[in-house]
Amino acid sequence: MKAIVVREPGGVDKLRYEDVADPVPGPGEVRVRLEYAGLNRRDLYARMGQYPRVRFPAIPGSDGAGVVDAVGAGVEALEAGDAVIIYPALNWGEDERAPSRAFEILGIPTDGTYAEQIVVPAANVFPKPGYLTGPEAAALPLVGLTAYRCLFARGKLEAGEQVLIPGIGGGLATMLLLMATAAGAHVAVTSSQDRKMTRAREMGAYASVNYRQADYVAELRRAVPDGFDLIVDTLGGPGFEDLVAVARPGGRLVLVGATAGPVPSLVLPRIFLKHLDLLGTSMGSPLDFARMLDFCLEHQIHPIVDRVFPLAEASAAQEYLWAGGQFGKVVLQVSGPT
Amino acid sequence: MKAIVVREPGGVDKLRYEDVADPVPGPGEVRVRLEYAGLNRRDLYARMGQYPRVRFPAIPGSDGAGVVDAVGAGVEALEAGDAVIIYPALNWGEDERAPSRAFEILGIPTDGTYAEQIVVPAANVFPKPGYLTGPEAAALPLVGLTAYRCLFARGKLEAGEQVLIPGIGGGLATMLLLMATAAGAHVAVTSSQDRKMTRAREMGAYASVNYRQADYVAELRRAVPDGFDLIVDTLGGPGFEDLVAVARPGGRLVLVGATAGPVPSLVLPRIFLKHLDLLGTSMGSPLDFARMLDFCLEHQIHPIVDRVFPLAEASAAQEYLWAGGQFGKVVLQVSGPT
Repeated sequence: MKAIVVREPGGVDKLRYEDVADPVPGPGEVRVRLEYAGLNRRDLYARMGQYPRVRFPAIPGSDGAGVVDAVGAGVEALEAGDAVIIYPALNWGEDERAPSRAFEILGIPTDGTYAEQIVVPAANVFPKPGYLTGPEAAALPLVGLTAYRCLFARGKLEAGEQVLIPGIGGGLATMLLLMATAAGAHVAVTSSQDRKMTRAREMGAYASVNYRQADYVAELRRAVPDGFDLIVDTLGGPGFEDLVAVARPGGRLVLVGATAGPVPSLVLPRIFLKHLDLLGTSMGSPLDFARMLDFCLEHQIHPIVDRVFPLAEASAAQEYLWAGGQFGKVVLQVSGPT
Repeated sequence: MKAIVVREPGGVDKLRYEDVADPVPGPGEVRVRLEYAGLNRRDLYARMGQYPRVRFPAIPGSDGAGVVDAVGAGVEALEAGDAVIIYPALNWGEDERAPSRAFEILGIPTDGTYAEQIVVPAANVFPKPGYLTGPEAAALPLVGLTAYRCLFARGKLEAGEQVLIPGIGGGLATMLLLMATAAGAHVAVTSSQDRKMTRAREMGAYASVNYRQADYVAELRRAVPDGFDLIVDTLGGPGFEDLVAVARPGGRLVLVGATAGPVPSLVLPRIFLKHLDLLGTSMGSPLDFARMLDFCLEHQIHPIVDRVFPLAEASAAQEYLWAGGQFGKVVLQVSGPT
């Protein structure tokens, strides 16, 4: 089969479009012929070798959608021809509160979805939601899972609540916006780009503030004087204390990313005198995934797909994602219709 | 009446033992003749003028126990002679999740319990638990309330869980130890003083580690290889990241103090990859207080009283508390038996 193989850590030039042996499903496993694969920022960091457990050579990619084309011994619930999407991790374990030590995300060191075929445990494949296009289905798993766990399993979002999503534009943030508005929340967003703020308002955000403005905290306060019930932070960094400042007393901040780096000097009384919950989360369990699919079906959530690249152009796709101009997900077309 | 009056912010010499007018209960209020008053570190910071809303002159003190001796108009559930303890705050409000903007703790700027008499709303007084001595009753309210909310309302402690209480010795930490062991938890403590660690083990802690040792984190890991389910942190500061390191994946850290200052450089992935809950809290609601009293009665919790000073020697009592050598609470004797 054709696949994108990374033989050593490095830049996008390390993403090589090569012929490799077809993987063969063992007992309890299935082989999926991929139609589309979704990109995540994790793919870039893994390709650079920035995670503790990376090993090479390996095929990147956590997100994929396609069709079952071979079934290992003992797999009865699936057969060749089933359209599926893939739960993008392995070995979550038995505890819904946190993954086991053996937990890993699909794609480097395990072979991932930037390939014509992938072998995964049968428990990892779920029926492809019929209302989604192929690219949408490949865009859903990782961000859908993560966003669902942020908002519901961890954030306990209720209809009518005020939600803040800082840094709108990426795949996760746009999925958070879609799901939170579908759940009946009032969603405000921040961005450094007016264009993304406009898109977010078109998608249902009722307020948007450019965080490059000096007075953006005051503007958020004017928009929501009592403070936000729920804030989902993918950024961290020096802006974190602004989020603490605009949270409602007794409110929740879900921590799910730190693209802006560590929080310099966290003043704890600002958190404990407000009785805030800071709730860490990352990815989600298979149960979260199943519930996420139900939620998306019920609310007909379509992930925002920004752009589709051919599999052979994975380097260009990763460069595009790295540049940060996208609104929504970047997807690779493997064998699905153009 | 006699009272300790602070006329301007400053050192312990600003605590003046003076004659002041007897307070008179208005409608809905009661006057309590205090027998004992409990000290808290807040009293010291308030005396130094370190809180935003301090005003002087004022009488310090949040904790008190005594006997109702006058009742304002409209108060029917209480009468002179009732032995009571005092809920140590005003204006929590209607939301159990967090206090209202009008919330304040008793004692500076409101007149507090370092006095022969205090007037408070009738809703603030609760029957004195009969199994407690006078000094124990005065030692209970603020730390009992805070510890109960930490462990149960916020921390959702369950029997059999592993609990870590860093910095054992103060009134709050010793109350946390008493309540957590009473609830069936396994409690480990840290301290910088071997003497306090010995006392904590006598009180039921099964493990104690001196945090001045270079390898204290490794020692905690050996004691509890799977990590702590619940950590109640009163310290903050540079040691905070060690607490994150010894928490169980999916565990809870309750944030209730920062005597060691801000947390320098908080690395968020350590929190979110472990799916930790960081739960801020401070004091508690009247409902928490009522539940705390029930819990203490059921488990016959006796607050640890380290030392009792006469009211007139409040300066010496505050100096003693400031020095940090105590194990348990420091109490003032106002009119109760010696």
